[in-house]
Amino acid sequence: MLEGRDIISINDFNKKEIEAVLDKSEEMEDILREKKCMETMKGKILANLFFEPSTRTRLSFSSAMHRLGGNVISLEKIKTSSMAKGESLTDTIRMVDKYSDLIVIRHPDEYSAKMAAGVAENPVINGGDGANQHPTQALIDLCSIRKFKGKIENLNVTLLGDLKHARVIKSLAYGLAIFKANITLVSPAGLELENKTVDELKSNFGITVSQTNDICSGIKNADVLYVCRMQKERFKDLQEAGEMQNTYRITPELLEQGKDSLIVMHALPKVGEIDHRVDQTKFAKYFEEAAFGVPVRMAVISLVVVG
Amino acid sequence: MLEGRDIISINDFNKKEIEAVLDKSEEMEDILREKKCMETMKGKILANLFFEPSTRTRLSFSSAMHRLGGNVISLEKIKTSSMAKGESLTDTIRMVDKYSDLIVIRHPDEYSAKMAAGVAENPVINGGDGANQHPTQALIDLCSIRKFKGKIENLNVTLLGDLKHARVIKSLAYGLAIFKANITLVSPAGLELENKTVDELKSNFGITVSQTNDICSGIKNADVLYVCRMQKERFKDLQEAGEMQNTYRITPELLEQGKDSLIVMHALPKVGEIDHRVDQTKFAKYFEEAAFGVPVRMAVISLVVVG
Amino acid sequence: MLEGRDIISINDFNKKEIEAVLDKSEEMEDILREKKCMETMKGKILANLFFEPSTRTRLSFSSAMHRLGGNVISLEKIKTSSMAKGESLTDTIRMVDKYSDLIVIRHPDEYSAKMAAGVAENPVINGGDGANQHPTQALIDLCSIRKFKGKIENLNVTLLGDLKHARVIKSLAYGLAIFKANITLVSPAGLELENKTVDELKSNFGITVSQTNDICSGIKNADVLYVCRMQKERFKDLQEAGEMQNTYRITPELLEQGKDSLIVMHALPKVGEIDHRVDQTKFAKYFEEAAFGVPVRMAVISLVVVG
Repeated sequence: MLEGRDIISINDFNKKEIEAVLDKSEEMEDILREKKCMETMKGKILANLFFEPSTRTRLSFSSAMHRLGGNVISLEKIKTSSMAKGESLTDTIRMVDKYSDLIVIRHPDEYSAKMAAGVAENPVINGGDGANQHPTQALIDLCSIRKFKGKIENLNVTLLGDLKHARVIKSLAYGLAIFKANITLVSPAGLELENKTVDELKSNFGITVSQTNDICSGIKNADVLYVCRMQKERFKDLQEAGEMQNTYRITPELLEQGKDSLIVMHALPKVGEIDHRVDQTKFAKYFEEAAFGVPVRMAVISLVVVG
Repeated sequence: MLEGRDIISINDFNKKEIEAVLDKSEEMEDILREKKCMETMKGKILANLFFEPSTRTRLSFSSAMHRLGGNVISLEKIKTSSMAKGESLTDTIRMVDKYSDLIVIRHPDEYSAKMAAGVAENPVINGGDGANQHPTQALIDLCSIRKFKGKIENLNVTLLGDLKHARVIKSLAYGLAIFKANITLVSPAGLELENKTVDELKSNFGITVSQTNDICSGIKNADVLYVCRMQKERFKDLQEAGEMQNTYRITPELLEQGKDSLIVMHALPKVGEIDHRVDQTKFAKYFEEAAFGVPVRMAVISLVVVG
Repeated sequence: MLEGRDIISINDFNKKEIEAVLDKSEEMEDILREKKCMETMKGKILANLFFEPSTRTRLSFSSAMHRLGGNVISLEKIKTSSMAKGESLTDTIRMVDKYSDLIVIRHPDEYSAKMAAGVAENPVINGGDGANQHPTQALIDLCSIRKFKGKIENLNVTLLGDLKHARVIKSLAYGLAIFKANITLVSPAGLELENKTVDELKSNFGITVSQTNDICSGIKNADVLYVCRMQKERFKDLQEAGEMQNTYRITPELLEQGKDSLIVMHALPKVGEIDHRVDQTKFAKYFEEAAFGVPVRMAVISLVVVG
């Protein structure tokens, strides 16, 4: 149902399509656990185009493609002022499109992935376009929630941290809204999710969205606490970023005030916003969540690449 | 007929051998179009050694090797002053030769590829040695011309731009000469193709070579217009490079003055020497030309690697 | 016998286990020479994590994995001060462990590999941890010696150069001790192998260990001369490093004073400590030694990865 489709924004999908991805992801997870060898992508090539540094997204897409029996070519070109003189992004995309069957692109400019999708004949997956979207991370998060909690519908999900700059939040919030979860937003003043997004979540999906600056009230009734790091690279004042990070640090003590069944999620890398003692508690689910990176991306690849 | 051969200069080939590569390339193109899976290079390893930045050559060789069922290892080592203290290039080649079945090398020093071929037991492909040669790009260009025009013999081919620094021009000019094309050279004063090469083209191949600084006369009777970018990285005065680029910019208006069947080619990346409006005209063939990068390199790899 | 094992230090192995690796390496060498295609690692992924630059170790592990039919993902992250603010190494390892079946790590901090092995579920191979250990290089050296000399037992092996900073020396010395070779240490004053290691070699293995600053006496009765480069990157005074390198330079004239059957080994890269004229003599075995990198690493990979 997704063959040939670009994966640019979570909003491009309806509920049925997302469920198809999550179902396929669970299939892939079984295959990985049983260490079965796949050849679905034999002879096919994924092109990783990274114009911003990435470890997790890049490596897990590579791993996913290899697990499916396919190969990977990589272009890592960190944007510098001198790039302005170089080849246009559209020319680069046109070329790479000829060399591969699928493009994964991360780029600091918003809507770069959409532009790439307009130029390429093969499917394009948005691996993060500035502060805009990161749809496959949202799929990983939705997959994790459904696995850990058995469902997504009607769960109380608290999104906490720098909600302004975290692109994964925008993608995830829409994904949660599609499944009618209740969303609570907790962020330092000035780092709130933009109003436009909040309004859309309420009006288009008819879900409850609460906002607060108080961590405790955000944790109290949550089934899922989703923590974001301060995106220091998008801040102008590094000291300010550091202070906010300390104020919103998640500790075991804080988590004890929530539900017994509360789970803590994080797209990683975490860099101090979660006390490392949390890693050992029953709440911590972020490493298992990270492990879903490969089967979910295997699912996405195998659904969109044309045979 | 090419098994075990190094690909250092287009001059190492006779017409029969080039035709064998072009024929094989068309075979490979068919296989790619039919999305057939190949295992010709199964278990084999191509080593990409890049001592100068490259996107197109590196990625298309990787793609070609993967399409053939083989694997790739990569060394990217951009030359800096500190490299002088390091390992000698011959030692690096000797080592990589043991780890692979085929070496592709790009290096800023002329004749570095020849030296590498002297040291390595496995075949070495020159992926660009300074301003000297870039034989596989010339093969791609010849393949494109034959495909677009049905033949190479007796065509009027105009080479335009910075002919002094563009290594692909030297390779391509000899390739065209082998096929008895008529060559017109158009370049800004000071950026002419070196006399030694022009003399060799005339005396060794007996073809017509005209030279001019006037774009219009260069375009007038051309069947093929091959445009080169200003190799800014080889200039001392960047402003001069920029001005020349503006003077020699190809526009749709200019092209309308040529033959109706004129085609415009370019090895890419283009960085301003072709007006972007040309992309949408019937003249523009450079993106299709770029697509030949993979089948031609598949042909070269499968012909030289010893089974 | 090594399935699921980490390869952190040569000391983790007994003689039987090392012999198993060497036997397996010779098998792999035969397979490579016969150009047979292997699928032992089909569907499996090796993760190369390099926090320090490396050419040989990284490329030969990649080559080995590909020769076995497996795939490779790569993270190269050269440590800079800004990394201190980033993700912890344990989090990085936890993530990469989920994306692969085997981790190879090189890191400037001693015992980083041991730490990684403690965190990862899959096997971890130490590709060099600071000045501590580099066990697979020692296995390559032992394999080479056994191949060139027919045995390791009772050979006179001279280790020469900067024995203080060369991590491969520590690994190799213990490996030689396990096989009851006689060790002579030759180093400039101040660059001796640390006393703790010398004492352990004598007391734990009961072998002869001589120490001298005189090259000639070190070469005189040697069967094997193993030369180390000055690890300039670990020196504070670069001039001092250069001077020492000149004093301890190996020449054909020096080697003529030794046994006729003397062989010279080196882990490479060599950067001046061996006169390039030695390359052409019968003594030089370092390029052949380098070629063992692939079969030995194929042996290690196929022995530790769980099927």
